[in-house]
Amino acid sequence: MATDIEIARAAKKLPVQDIAARIGAAPKDIIPYGHDKAKLSAGFLQRQSARPDGKLILVTAINPTPAGEGKTTTSIGLADAMNRIGANTLLCLREPSLGPCFGMKGGATGGGLAQIVPMEDINLHFTGDFHAITSAHNLLSALVDNHIHWGGEPKLETVRTSWRRVMDMNDRSLRNIVSGLGGPGNGAPSETGFDITVASEVMAILCLATDAEDLEARLSRIIVGYTREKVAVTAADIKATGAMMALLRDAMLPNLVQTLENNPCLVHGGPFANIAHGCNSVIATSAALKMADYVVTEAGFGADLGAEKFLNIKCRQAGLAPDAVVLVATIRALKMHGGLAKDELSKVSYEALEKGLANLARHIENLRSFGLPVVVAINRFTTDTEGEVHALQAYCEKLSVSVALCTHWAEGGKGAETLARSVVKLIEDGTADFKPLYPDNLSLLEKIEAVAKSIYRADRVEAARAVKNLLAAWEKAGFGHLPVCMAKTQYSFSTDPALLGAPEGHVVRLREVRLAAGAGFVVAICGDIMTMPGLPRRPAAEHIHLNAHGQIEGLN
Amino acid sequence: MATDIEIARAAKKLPVQDIAARIGAAPKDIIPYGHDKAKLSAGFLQRQSARPDGKLILVTAINPTPAGEGKTTTSIGLADAMNRIGANTLLCLREPSLGPCFGMKGGATGGGLAQIVPMEDINLHFTGDFHAITSAHNLLSALVDNHIHWGGEPKLETVRTSWRRVMDMNDRSLRNIVSGLGGPGNGAPSETGFDITVASEVMAILCLATDAEDLEARLSRIIVGYTREKVAVTAADIKATGAMMALLRDAMLPNLVQTLENNPCLVHGGPFANIAHGCNSVIATSAALKMADYVVTEAGFGADLGAEKFLNIKCRQAGLAPDAVVLVATIRALKMHGGLAKDELSKVSYEALEKGLANLARHIENLRSFGLPVVVAINRFTTDTEGEVHALQAYCEKLSVSVALCTHWAEGGKGAETLARSVVKLIEDGTADFKPLYPDNLSLLEKIEAVAKSIYRADRVEAARAVKNLLAAWEKAGFGHLPVCMAKTQYSFSTDPALLGAPEGHVVRLREVRLAAGAGFVVAICGDIMTMPGLPRRPAAEHIHLNAHGQIEGLN
Repeated sequence: MATDIEIARAAKKLPVQDIAARIGAAPKDIIPYGHDKAKLSAGFLQRQSARPDGKLILVTAINPTPAGEGKTTTSIGLADAMNRIGANTLLCLREPSLGPCFGMKGGATGGGLAQIVPMEDINLHFTGDFHAITSAHNLLSALVDNHIHWGGEPKLETVRTSWRRVMDMNDRSLRNIVSGLGGPGNGAPSETGFDITVASEVMAILCLATDAEDLEARLSRIIVGYTREKVAVTAADIKATGAMMALLRDAMLPNLVQTLENNPCLVHGGPFANIAHGCNSVIATSAALKMADYVVTEAGFGADLGAEKFLNIKCRQAGLAPDAVVLVATIRALKMHGGLAKDELSKVSYEALEKGLANLARHIENLRSFGLPVVVAINRFTTDTEGEVHALQAYCEKLSVSVALCTHWAEGGKGAETLARSVVKLIEDGTADFKPLYPDNLSLLEKIEAVAKSIYRADRVEAARAVKNLLAAWEKAGFGHLPVCMAKTQYSFSTDPALLGAPEGHVVRLREVRLAAGAGFVVAICGDIMTMPGLPRRPAAEHIHLNAHGQIEGLN
Repeated sequence: MATDIEIARAAKKLPVQDIAARIGAAPKDIIPYGHDKAKLSAGFLQRQSARPDGKLILVTAINPTPAGEGKTTTSIGLADAMNRIGANTLLCLREPSLGPCFGMKGGATGGGLAQIVPMEDINLHFTGDFHAITSAHNLLSALVDNHIHWGGEPKLETVRTSWRRVMDMNDRSLRNIVSGLGGPGNGAPSETGFDITVASEVMAILCLATDAEDLEARLSRIIVGYTREKVAVTAADIKATGAMMALLRDAMLPNLVQTLENNPCLVHGGPFANIAHGCNSVIATSAALKMADYVVTEAGFGADLGAEKFLNIKCRQAGLAPDAVVLVATIRALKMHGGLAKDELSKVSYEALEKGLANLARHIENLRSFGLPVVVAINRFTTDTEGEVHALQAYCEKLSVSVALCTHWAEGGKGAETLARSVVKLIEDGTADFKPLYPDNLSLLEKIEAVAKSIYRADRVEAARAVKNLLAAWEKAGFGHLPVCMAKTQYSFSTDPALLGAPEGHVVRLREVRLAAGAGFVVAICGDIMTMPGLPRRPAAEHIHLNAHGQIEGLN
């Protein structure tokens, strides 16, 4: 079979103006970037606001394993299939980060016959959104240090300045640095560092803002540090917000591309799914709901992290309510959750499968607790046996959950038509009655406990006195109404990545909390969270190159 | 009068497709970025290569003073004027850097009625070229540190690794940093820092490369550090070149925009004019010569730095030969060179003017020594008196140099028609017989001396033994044929910024030399060169913002 990039390159793309017409946008309503990418203009977005909303479908997954589950691929396959069966559907995905493309092999535009194109562009610079976010973030960093350098008011203390810098690169050497060396002309020496751009609060803010006004208000609220008297100093205090907005003028507009089957797709924003909420922008999702009868979107990692944050943070803040949830699983991954090792997954083992199904069942239960109907999508591998498929179907029947076999990787949208029909039926049944897990007025610690107990099935949350004091101080400062953004391993319901399946009775240790006042959440860090990845011994970069026709090779 | 941004915003822009038609490019030959910016496709560029070359006009200036000389504005006004008088002309300019936009007030797209548009876009992210260059540079940095981290071959020594990082930002705190702190998982501690993107060798390389093949070869030759045995380690050794090329795929294509008078303009690349050569890309200039009868281009700073490097580096490497040179001056600046203070420039002083004219005369003499015919463009201010203008004209007559009064800032192309006619006449006279100042086979130190003595009129060059040894070592290693890239103050012919007018008999102290093996020159640093600017006490960023219509304000 051809590689993903070969398939993508052979795609019969339609001009982006034709794709725009599918969502009611005239050529003047888009800002083209080449012939196959565009941004939707601010004026066009505004004109859609009075239209009724379509139905929202969230694609999420079981806890990821090295076997892979194919959540993005399934989202793309589903959107293509919905359009095939006559359901007018618009897909909303995240933008990939440049960094990982050069690290481990793998972009984030789907695979096989379920891809969005132009694959190389989307995976690299795309329309420059991440570069704009990087610039806006680092402009604030430069302005903060400049404020300290010239002794501006309010007086920021270097040792209480928490605003780092970002780069869209996997670069471990920048995690911890000392800046401002070489004398007073070069600023004040300061312990600081760089995060990858997707971990920037500016990224989270851009993805949660409902419009330009809200974006500006959120940027203004960013806390960059504190005075000696521990008074918070914000981006607005530093007079940085206006210039950041100028840099983000185009980045806040959703990007339009197409699937291999020429269906429209909005790709916009890509916050980390650990220290941020991990879904595409609210602006894109809200706009999409105005432009199509159905909107398919995706949340990062497994449902315990991605869906939980999609529902408790994004939907809460933006007033969104999903109508159905697709839970993606593979038989191989379920067998891993049931105890098989990575190199044993081709082996038929009903015991491992049945044991692993507990992970699936737990996610179904959790998602239903939000008042949402669920359909299970089995992303089928050729190695899956009929017997294994039957066992899985029987199990789902026992749980009264519909299940659909999908072969979109090999067949494109055709391979996800069963899933599409199940989704449409689920929505037509009209059983969705979304409610977030916790109300705004619980204390911050109670919110963390609610997630840990209801979703992770932990017995309790442990936190040091200092952490609890910080939460209490933020409540006193008026941030108690914020939702919590959980940061923990994506591989397990627990905080131990090795604990697969459906563990319970474990303890969640709350190591650290961070206030993202602009994004509007409190990050609860439970475990080791890496905000700047490193490159592997043999980075993918070594094999990426331009061929004799000027096309990119090695980006798979 | 309206501000520059107000004038730019009120411009009656033509669709970029119409501008493309002016240079023979069909809609499919361009890659649009919005409706008013585009890149020329690689295929289109290739198809032009067999066409005959037009005439090349270099716009340069006297030594800059705080009074301003208006080189970019004159370039734009001249191109508009040439097109007005029926001379089919294409303008080639540099891309502005993001950093300075937020520092001191001022973009780099001209001013008054001599501007290129869209002003805000060109001054901010434009088509993403600088972001791509930043990414390619920093990917190499990450790969270098990763190579050291994993102990790859050839073994690079941390203390001999000279490849820094870049950011398109004025951020003094990043000039000197220690990276890799926090334990072995975060790389090795290392003294390093960031330069502004325009100071990146990748920028210089992109601007000197003749095509994709040459770009790749130059990137491969970048020296990132040395082994313990002092053997140079290159980007090719680190296997970084292919991925850098992938990141630069679009950045190497020239950008097409328009002047306020709807004439085409290529804007591409923007290397520093001190540690690099300070002109737009060779790819853009060479392509422009195929697409128009006349090409107007500009070199950074005064003629002693900008024109010298344009001629000795860019023209030498790319096989270009100018047909005429426009030397821009203002009466105010000449009076400053003659001894008037900045706040006395409105005063009529024939004595100061005559004394200051020595600066103009020296540049004329220097430019003629390259075998090039010169015309002086007086960028007229309303405060200039008739008497001063006459004195200047008389002086130019004495030097047998034609002089043209220009009012393009207030009147657009109409105000530079006299200049345009002088330029066309100069070219039709056919007196240009370009030869670089020194041959390839002089030693590196002799080349530096040639510039210092012939152009700067210094008595001698002083250099420490260590500096001389380094030059000798590079000659031995096969880099002796390279031209030299002089880095000194732009304010004086000498290395003392306070020495205005036409000093002679001074001493040039060669402080430091750097080998830019990829760009293909040896940087000779004579004075304090800042490769990462800082922000002023009141940065322009404080006043930049989006207005209620989503338009950028405060970028002037």
